[in-house]
Amino acid sequence: MYKVDLNCDLGESFGNYKIGADEEILTFVTSANIACGFHAGDPAVMHKTVRLAIENEVSIGAHPGLPDLVGFGRRNMNISPEDAYDMVVYQVGALNAFVKAEGGKLQHVKPHGALYNMAAKNHILAKAIAEAIYKVDSQLILFGLSGSELIKAGEKVGLRTASEVFADRTYQEDGSLTPRTERNAVITDEGDAIKQVIKMVREGTVLCQQGFDIPIKAETICLHGDGVHALAFAQEINKQLEAFEINIKSFMK
Amino acid sequence: MYKVDLNCDLGESFGNYKIGADEEILTFVTSANIACGFHAGDPAVMHKTVRLAIENEVSIGAHPGLPDLVGFGRRNMNISPEDAYDMVVYQVGALNAFVKAEGGKLQHVKPHGALYNMAAKNHILAKAIAEAIYKVDSQLILFGLSGSELIKAGEKVGLRTASEVFADRTYQEDGSLTPRTERNAVITDEGDAIKQVIKMVREGTVLCQQGFDIPIKAETICLHGDGVHALAFAQEINKQLEAFEINIKSFMK
Amino acid sequence: MYKVDLNCDLGESFGNYKIGADEEILTFVTSANIACGFHAGDPAVMHKTVRLAIENEVSIGAHPGLPDLVGFGRRNMNISPEDAYDMVVYQVGALNAFVKAEGGKLQHVKPHGALYNMAAKNHILAKAIAEAIYKVDSQLILFGLSGSELIKAGEKVGLRTASEVFADRTYQEDGSLTPRTERNAVITDEGDAIKQVIKMVREGTVLCQQGFDIPIKAETICLHGDGVHALAFAQEINKQLEAFEINIKSFMK
Amino acid sequence: MYKVDLNCDLGESFGNYKIGADEEILTFVTSANIACGFHAGDPAVMHKTVRLAIENEVSIGAHPGLPDLVGFGRRNMNISPEDAYDMVVYQVGALNAFVKAEGGKLQHVKPHGALYNMAAKNHILAKAIAEAIYKVDSQLILFGLSGSELIKAGEKVGLRTASEVFADRTYQEDGSLTPRTERNAVITDEGDAIKQVIKMVREGTVLCQQGFDIPIKAETICLHGDGVHALAFAQEINKQLEAFEINIKSFMK
Repeated sequence: MYKVDLNCDLGESFGNYKIGADEEILTFVTSANIACGFHAGDPAVMHKTVRLAIENEVSIGAHPGLPDLVGFGRRNMNISPEDAYDMVVYQVGALNAFVKAEGGKLQHVKPHGALYNMAAKNHILAKAIAEAIYKVDSQLILFGLSGSELIKAGEKVGLRTASEVFADRTYQEDGSLTPRTERNAVITDEGDAIKQVIKMVREGTVLCQQGFDIPIKAETICLHGDGVHALAFAQEINKQLEAFEINIKSFMK
Repeated sequence: MYKVDLNCDLGESFGNYKIGADEEILTFVTSANIACGFHAGDPAVMHKTVRLAIENEVSIGAHPGLPDLVGFGRRNMNISPEDAYDMVVYQVGALNAFVKAEGGKLQHVKPHGALYNMAAKNHILAKAIAEAIYKVDSQLILFGLSGSELIKAGEKVGLRTASEVFADRTYQEDGSLTPRTERNAVITDEGDAIKQVIKMVREGTVLCQQGFDIPIKAETICLHGDGVHALAFAQEINKQLEAFEINIKSFMK
Repeated sequence: MYKVDLNCDLGESFGNYKIGADEEILTFVTSANIACGFHAGDPAVMHKTVRLAIENEVSIGAHPGLPDLVGFGRRNMNISPEDAYDMVVYQVGALNAFVKAEGGKLQHVKPHGALYNMAAKNHILAKAIAEAIYKVDSQLILFGLSGSELIKAGEKVGLRTASEVFADRTYQEDGSLTPRTERNAVITDEGDAIKQVIKMVREGTVLCQQGFDIPIKAETICLHGDGVHALAFAQEINKQLEAFEINIKSFMK
Repeated sequence: MYKVDLNCDLGESFGNYKIGADEEILTFVTSANIACGFHAGDPAVMHKTVRLAIENEVSIGAHPGLPDLVGFGRRNMNISPEDAYDMVVYQVGALNAFVKAEGGKLQHVKPHGALYNMAAKNHILAKAIAEAIYKVDSQLILFGLSGSELIKAGEKVGLRTASEVFADRTYQEDGSLTPRTERNAVITDEGDAIKQVIKMVREGTVLCQQGFDIPIKAETICLHGDGVHALAFAQEINKQLEAFEINIKSFMK
């Protein structure tokens, strides 16, 4: 039988500010990437989100980002590999403490936003991030873009990795995502998005924008936690994956 | 034979900003309280300071503070017990990750500045802090002002505690420190300061400002890491303690 | 004819985080207190909110707060009068630059949250804040709690002041607000709240919790910008004030 | 007679952290670029530095930077032109309020670090920065790298500009600075550095690394405020400029 993990970014509220329908989305995913206070999240939000994930038996990951709260960690910054290493150690440790305090166990680390995107292409940053995770806990699983430098760096350093795919994004012939600045970057039809994911998981291929199938490894699917259709889409993808005999579970279950 | 620990606040630099003669003071102390990024320190400084402490065989503690970099964590804030709990879990976890990554083991936690002072008097905050530490790792040692609510809360929650005394501060008959706003709050003569410490460790008493001896528990002595005389004083106190047959070592050694 | 100003806290969003129905509430108020980046708001939000206020012909005020984004400026901090002076100069200047850039003119300054509350009772902080405003622009109007130390300090320093009252809060015999921790602190019936305001403006009195009328100066009324009933209440209070021949306008119009 | 301005970055301390010999360097320069709280500086430091500059009759400029305190504003960030506009308006306004409060007048704006470097090459960012300054106060002078996009954008928008040169940096044939990553980027001999500056001011040319003279506009020279030789160099350059009949004064004097 086929198997896939569904992950979602959670715990992105901050102080008085609320983002995301965390409580609802937790019933539809198997892994939660929890923000660690640099691009989103604060200690109180982290505490609450870790507890919610444990209550919902959702596996927990740290979701470290760039130190850019006002930019939500989405603006590339010219950080050094040492910066990347240190900010990942710091944030993974902070989140892990909440997980331990609540009696849970940290499953994975998925870099956020610009850190994720930079590490997908820059092998030096990717290596620094992978080493940081390995040094904190060599049993952690590294989530990264399928086929990216980050996944390669994780494997090289000895980490277990999980290749992430996107239901609603299109792919180029080299396996990269079509940039959001281009037409057709996003699949707006939900049915098409779900079909793409099922094909990825069952066949290990995706139809690229150049018109032919390319191989792709799909171990975890990224769902969105906000937006009007997020919950409905999460529900539908659960239903369809099961209909196509794809078992939805995280890596620790 | 008598025994005492010498601790010092370290890793208080931030980005381009340098404070403290960390490399030098590490040769004179047995426990290092390392700032965790809220009132001072940043991930790079934490990384470097943890490594330095391990190289110098100095036991490591987390030094969590209030989220007030511009005020260096010295301004009281009206935080809730939940705030205190969460900010301690977060910061202890972040520092612990660097300690683990460098192959070390975290010995203790000492709250910083206003958090330390508020917790010395406020038993509700003290309890929240003690519980946070216990939940992250029940083997950690809680450093607090000798005789304070923080020490009491630590004992109650089941933590090992270390009662901290100050060489250069005078005491009131109830065992509290003479406030800095009052005359005679600080002992300026180094010889007198060292004599006070030796008496505390050997006899378990201190001459209070009201003119008589009161009992005091002295398990760890706080040294200052900056200032012109810091290194000379650290050297002299080492010499004198040994001359009076007081063994200087941390709790993990 | 009677006259009163209606003010509201606006521009409290931050980066990716949205708070408040700013565009809608601007059609019901005459003065906008715009957050300045310390407790809420960021440069982009300030820019946008200033432009919206000008488009709606709403008078603009700076709304400086404590440097505590995670606490939304609501946690008291033990700041010095010099700290208060400097943080008010900084924030008023920052907001004023957006107002100038958009071709507007800054009308007033209203401290936020804990800074407002501390300055209502602490005459030293109140004086520091009033002097900061006067030094930046002696024509600015200081908004403060009616009868507070802040209003007194403003008058003493030579600033024009505006005494602020609350529709939905009850008062003590000394003119202070009933603390939120007590029963009956908040008037939940909207009709009662509006009646209280009309009495304040027309008669200059309020029925205090001890059961008799006390004098109160009501020059500006604070409305809330979020919450489910905020817009409906703003609309209703506009209607009722006009029905009782109270002219609603700001101080610059 | 020839004329040039000497500028220096000042007010870069933060909270408990001190950088720079501000009081001493102020006696050797004619324009001060004062940090505005994003990459360095805080409201108290800004207040103090503005007062010091006025006391020393040094003309004052705002020195806005990227929101990156831990990186001292030196790491490029992928900000939008709107971000750049808003962060410049905010910071210039904040500093200007201190200048007004102290009875002074703001002379200029010089972007800091990565913002300065990005704006030197990126005409869209340059335009956004120039427009921000013009909108806040069209009389302000824009300091930028001689020959850069920032200077061009300033002229286009209608600002008075001041072309900045560096005594201790070498130049390429296109007028750009030799990148610090290359050999010969820095002129280490103080005599050579001063000779280069005198030639720039008197002849309007500089010997580029390709071995011939290129035209360069030198209206203001950047001096460093820290480092062991900063004060000695500042003193020597003052002496030499005067010896070569170059009048040292700012643009407002």
